[in-house]
Amino acid sequence: MKNRNWILSNRPQGAIKSGDFTREDRDMPVPGNGEVLVRVLYLAMDPAIRGFMNASGNYAAPLPLGAPVRGVMLGQIIRTGPGAELSEGQFVWGFGTWSDYVVAPASQFYVVEADADSDLASFTHVRGTIGLTAYYGLLDVGDFKSGDTVLVSGASGAVGSLVGQIAKIKGASRVVGISGGTAKCQRAVDDYGYDFCIDYRSGSDLNTQLDTILPEGIDLLFENVGGSLFEASLNHLARNARIAICGMISRYNASNDQPGPSNLWNLVVKTAQVRGFLVSSILGDRARTQAMLKSINEWISEGRLKYDIDIREGFEAIPDVYNCLFTGAHKGRLIVKVADPVR
Amino acid sequence: MKNRNWILSNRPQGAIKSGDFTREDRDMPVPGNGEVLVRVLYLAMDPAIRGFMNASGNYAAPLPLGAPVRGVMLGQIIRTGPGAELSEGQFVWGFGTWSDYVVAPASQFYVVEADADSDLASFTHVRGTIGLTAYYGLLDVGDFKSGDTVLVSGASGAVGSLVGQIAKIKGASRVVGISGGTAKCQRAVDDYGYDFCIDYRSGSDLNTQLDTILPEGIDLLFENVGGSLFEASLNHLARNARIAICGMISRYNASNDQPGPSNLWNLVVKTAQVRGFLVSSILGDRARTQAMLKSINEWISEGRLKYDIDIREGFEAIPDVYNCLFTGAHKGRLIVKVADPVR
Repeated sequence: MKNRNWILSNRPQGAIKSGDFTREDRDMPVPGNGEVLVRVLYLAMDPAIRGFMNASGNYAAPLPLGAPVRGVMLGQIIRTGPGAELSEGQFVWGFGTWSDYVVAPASQFYVVEADADSDLASFTHVRGTIGLTAYYGLLDVGDFKSGDTVLVSGASGAVGSLVGQIAKIKGASRVVGISGGTAKCQRAVDDYGYDFCIDYRSGSDLNTQLDTILPEGIDLLFENVGGSLFEASLNHLARNARIAICGMISRYNASNDQPGPSNLWNLVVKTAQVRGFLVSSILGDRARTQAMLKSINEWISEGRLKYDIDIREGFEAIPDVYNCLFTGAHKGRLIVKVADPVR
Repeated sequence: MKNRNWILSNRPQGAIKSGDFTREDRDMPVPGNGEVLVRVLYLAMDPAIRGFMNASGNYAAPLPLGAPVRGVMLGQIIRTGPGAELSEGQFVWGFGTWSDYVVAPASQFYVVEADADSDLASFTHVRGTIGLTAYYGLLDVGDFKSGDTVLVSGASGAVGSLVGQIAKIKGASRVVGISGGTAKCQRAVDDYGYDFCIDYRSGSDLNTQLDTILPEGIDLLFENVGGSLFEASLNHLARNARIAICGMISRYNASNDQPGPSNLWNLVVKTAQVRGFLVSSILGDRARTQAMLKSINEWISEGRLKYDIDIREGFEAIPDVYNCLFTGAHKGRLIVKVADPVR
C-alpha cells in the first residue's frame, strides 16, 4: 500500500504552472511515539499555501523543495503510536499535506465532534479556521461595535461571506462588500447578508462609489485583498476607524513587491488603527475557540449563517483545483475531497 | 497701531518659496463677545502647518489664500471681550496666526501656570503639545510596556527627543533612534537617552543595521517620518509589535503621492498593530492632560527630561525660519519669538 503525495518540485514564479508539482508515491508512514496516522479526507485550498511555496515563506517557514505541499485538512485517525492521546476513528483538523495519509504528533490536531454522517467538509470552513477567522477578525481584532458601518473586501470569498453575515447578526448599521464580477456581488447580497456589494471589475471609480455608498465613512474595514482596493478604502475611513487585515490575496502571486498604499496619512487624520492578525493566535485557547464555535453552530442551526463549499473530487486534481483560487473559478470555500471516511 | 501678518498668497508646490507669503499690515482686531485679544509671544514652526497650506489640507481644513498662516502659539491676553472667561495678563497657548495679535474665542486657548519670568517658550514644546504628543503617543497609543524595545524615527526632532527619554524613564530595555547626520545622532545618544542612533544618511543599508542593532525585533515603533524609513522598520517588527504613527514629515513637501510601504504584509505575519493619532484627541480631557503635564514637570525638575528649543528672533524672519524645518538646519524645537511679555 502506497501513499500518494504532491511534491513541490519547483518554486513557482507568479502563477502556478503544472511543472511546479510532481506526484510521488511513497511508503505508508508509521506513527512513532505520540504520533498518529491520519487519513486525509478533505484538503482546503488556502491562499496562504501559495506563500509557503516561496523561498521566503510567509507567516510560516517556506516549504522545502521535495516536500509534500502543506495545508489545512480534515482527516480521520487510522492508527495511533505509543502514548498518542487520540483514538482511532476520531475526526480531526489541522495542518496536513497534499497526501493520502499523514503522520504527525497528535498534539497538532484538533478533534471535532463529528461522525461519518456529519458535514465533514464544514470543519475545513465555517466550523474550522475560516469561521474562526471571520469571527475573531471582525469581533475581536476589528473591535466591532453595534451600529458600525462595515466594509469587507473579498466579500463573496470564504472568509468574507461569513464576515458579512456575522456583522449583520451583531447589529451593524450597514454592511458593504467589494467583490469581482456581477455574479459574485449578487451572491454577496442575496446569500451573505450584504446591504450592497461593489463590483471592482465594473470599471466605475471605486472612490466615487465608496463616497456614494458610505458617505459617513467606514467604521470597520475587514481587509482580505490589499492592493488598490485597500488604498481606495483608506480614503473613506470614519473617525477612529478600525481595520483588521486578514490577508492580501492580491499579492500572493506577485513575484515582485508592489507599491503599497500611498495614503497611510489617513490613519493619522482619522486616528484610525490597523491590526494584522492570524487565526493561529487564538487556536491555542481551546475554551475561547470552543465558545466561538458554539455561537457559529447556533447561527447555522437557526438558519442565520449560510456557507458555501465548493467540493472538487480526487487527489489527482489538486494542483489544477488550487489554481482556481487565483482565477476566481469557484463558488465559496474551495475544498478537495480526497477520500471517504472509514465507517 | 497696526497688526503685522504673514499671509498665504500662493499655495506652495513642494518646497516653500519666498513668494508664497506676503506681509500685510492690518488694523488691530477687537475682541467681540466671548473673545480675547492675544499678543503673540512665541510661534511654533510645526511640520503640520505645511499641510494646511495645501488645497486639500491635512487633518485640518486648508488655509484659505489671503489668510494669515495658522500655527500653535504661546501668547498673553491683552484685552477681553464681554463674557470671555479669561483675564488680562494671563498666558495661554493654542492656535494662533503668524501675526502680532490674534482675536479668537477664549474657549480655544489653554491657560498655563506661568509668569513673565517663566520659560515661556517651553509651553510651545515640552510643556505643551509636543510633550503631550510624546507622552500620549508612546505610552497610550503605543501601549508601551516596561521592557519593550523601542525604535523612534526623527529621534533628534522635537517629539523624538522626548520620546526616547520617556521610554528610558519608563523602563524600555533598548531605545534606538533614526536620524539624519552624525551630529543629530550624537545628540540623540548624548542628550536624549538613546542607546543607539542610526544615521540614515550614512549610506549603510538600514535593514542590515536594524538586523544588527535590534536582532530581537521592534516591540514599539514611534513613527515620525514615513517613507523608506518606515518601510524598512516594518521588516523588523517583533511579534505583537505596536506602531504609533505621529506624522510623516518626509511626505509633507511631496507634491505627488509617493508609493507607500510595499511590505504591510508584515503586520499580518507579526500580528502587529498600527495606530495613527493626533494629540488633539486628548486635549479636550483637561484632567488627563494635566496629569500628563504633571509627570512631565516632575521629570524636568528631576533633571531626567531635557529639551532643546531653537529660538529665532523676529516677526520678519518667520517664512525663512519655517523653511529650516525641512532643510534640517535647526537644533530642537524651532520657535520664533515675536514679542516680549507685558509685565
